[in-house]
Amino acid sequence: MSEISSIGEFGLIHHLTKDFKTINASTLKAVGDDCAVIDSGGKKTLLTTDLLLEGIHFDLTYVPLRHLGYKAVVVNLSDVYAMNGTPRQITVSLGVSKRFTVEHITELYAGIYAACERYCVDLVGGDTSASVTGLLISITCVGEADEKDIIYRNGAADTNLICVSGDLGAAYMGLQLLERERVASAGQKDFQPDFAGREYLLERQLKPEARRDVINEIRELDIHPTAMIDVSDGLSSELIHICRQSGVGCRIYEDRIPIDYQTAVMAEELNMNLVTAAMNGGEDYELLFTVPLSELEKVEKMKTAHMIGHIVKPSLGTSMVTRDGTEVEICAQGWNAFKEE
Amino acid sequence: MSEISSIGEFGLIHHLTKDFKTINASTLKAVGDDCAVIDSGGKKTLLTTDLLLEGIHFDLTYVPLRHLGYKAVVVNLSDVYAMNGTPRQITVSLGVSKRFTVEHITELYAGIYAACERYCVDLVGGDTSASVTGLLISITCVGEADEKDIIYRNGAADTNLICVSGDLGAAYMGLQLLERERVASAGQKDFQPDFAGREYLLERQLKPEARRDVINEIRELDIHPTAMIDVSDGLSSELIHICRQSGVGCRIYEDRIPIDYQTAVMAEELNMNLVTAAMNGGEDYELLFTVPLSELEKVEKMKTAHMIGHIVKPSLGTSMVTRDGTEVEICAQGWNAFKEE
Repeated sequence: MSEISSIGEFGLIHHLTKDFKTINASTLKAVGDDCAVIDSGGKKTLLTTDLLLEGIHFDLTYVPLRHLGYKAVVVNLSDVYAMNGTPRQITVSLGVSKRFTVEHITELYAGIYAACERYCVDLVGGDTSASVTGLLISITCVGEADEKDIIYRNGAADTNLICVSGDLGAAYMGLQLLERERVASAGQKDFQPDFAGREYLLERQLKPEARRDVINEIRELDIHPTAMIDVSDGLSSELIHICRQSGVGCRIYEDRIPIDYQTAVMAEELNMNLVTAAMNGGEDYELLFTVPLSELEKVEKMKTAHMIGHIVKPSLGTSMVTRDGTEVEICAQGWNAFKEE
Repeated sequence: MSEISSIGEFGLIHHLTKDFKTINASTLKAVGDDCAVIDSGGKKTLLTTDLLLEGIHFDLTYVPLRHLGYKAVVVNLSDVYAMNGTPRQITVSLGVSKRFTVEHITELYAGIYAACERYCVDLVGGDTSASVTGLLISITCVGEADEKDIIYRNGAADTNLICVSGDLGAAYMGLQLLERERVASAGQKDFQPDFAGREYLLERQLKPEARRDVINEIRELDIHPTAMIDVSDGLSSELIHICRQSGVGCRIYEDRIPIDYQTAVMAEELNMNLVTAAMNGGEDYELLFTVPLSELEKVEKMKTAHMIGHIVKPSLGTSMVTRDGTEVEICAQGWNAFKEE
């Protein structure tokens, strides 16, 4: 018998889906990208789903239910934007143990509705059930896109520029901060956590946004990404997805990885390696994309994203060029929920 | 604070969704039917989702993983058929605790794939995660239908005939049988459960089928149902859904409720009320539908379904006429997972 931790989530999914052939002509893209793509006769339908489990993906001792509902929606929308699509509908399935009251679930839904309102998405269905232990949230999002607009992970080509939006590592540092204060508060009554000057880190962890604004700017500037993915498991993991699926290599530059000031200060304080946090932290929900070299000028005008490197021939591998000019191979340390702590 | 069991699943969903207005023109039908209906420009997209949790919806001491995978898919397909649609794609999200190995999940997927193959459905995505305790399966199904073909729950009208496919109560009796043998086997090594002559009950509980054949027969005979729903929570509950949403009442006849011989024998043996089991047992996954009186002759030709009553004016209420001619009001005792045992 093989323990699942021995092959990890990606290994398990690959093992389970590798021999499965699709049957329906309307299935344009099945497993392997941010969303599945379905031909519905008119616009194409994008479909993505995410599962959030208490004790694995969130800890209710420091995550307010309203924020949890908001984030659960946003992570799905992020996948639709990562295909250059527009999210339209979601379904929400909940498993709820006896310690939750109607008021708790109403609070969770307030966050779900707030995200729906902000991103103009309709809640169209779901399933609510008792659970033996804890809370679980399974959300599916349906989006739409014209076929010509859809951006897959497999279109990156040699000499393409690599761009990423926003900054990286802040959500991970926000989690470290929450965890530190949780430990410090243990057993103390009236404990006041100290989050002063760290609001950005908390916001990135507790209430991330999907980068609709990046998609809008790409359209406004008439930029045509060749590949795109959202950064949920960490930059390293997502770069490897794009390079593997496109059959290319990459060079990114350490000094170009976008990092916020608060992230850097927090890493210093916790004595953690800043670049490792930015490369492997995860939960950034930024967009990582590649564009043809000919669009360099347009990319330089972008306010929401900037260039961090370029695509190279596959034989050159996937590496980061450090500040002193050394090439370090990029390994996906991305978050493996099956790994033993 | 209000316990969820005080309002039940339907009450909770109503409470959470009653004030929510949809925004997108493509959202043709949101919460409240077997599926949501989305306008994708060509054919309409049907969307449904179901959550199955260990310890709530299934018990792995008597449910083989392969059957569980099969059933998890089938219950979603059943919702698409209940809209007169064709299921095309599914996504599968799993939460898996450490006691499950790669071999276990491969077995579960064998059942998922068997259902996909039988019903010509493509697996197009999902999410796999570690869970703290037990197994959970969240499946979403996407189907398609021409707008004119979609059958909602709200179209039943006075004098319509009420029909149901197959027979009722067998899945519930199968569960009772499995539970009895589980209790009998406790602590005994090499215990051989006695299922002889009860194979049909087991099959109905462990490996139900979605009634694609009923949909095909309706099309072949050119029958035009005015309302349709699948029987997942029990005939009583589904009749009340159709009557409430259509603003009508109903009369069904006790002696017309279809019940298999094995179901009757088992009820006798367990000293349970047979009609109660058939009306409220649930998990039958049969189709309940109404048709105009003018199609009586066509309905009488159906092999997969037959008539059990008719729709009446709302003032006459929802009742069952017993064998001795008494009218008994139908109450939805349907399965409430939040109820205390």
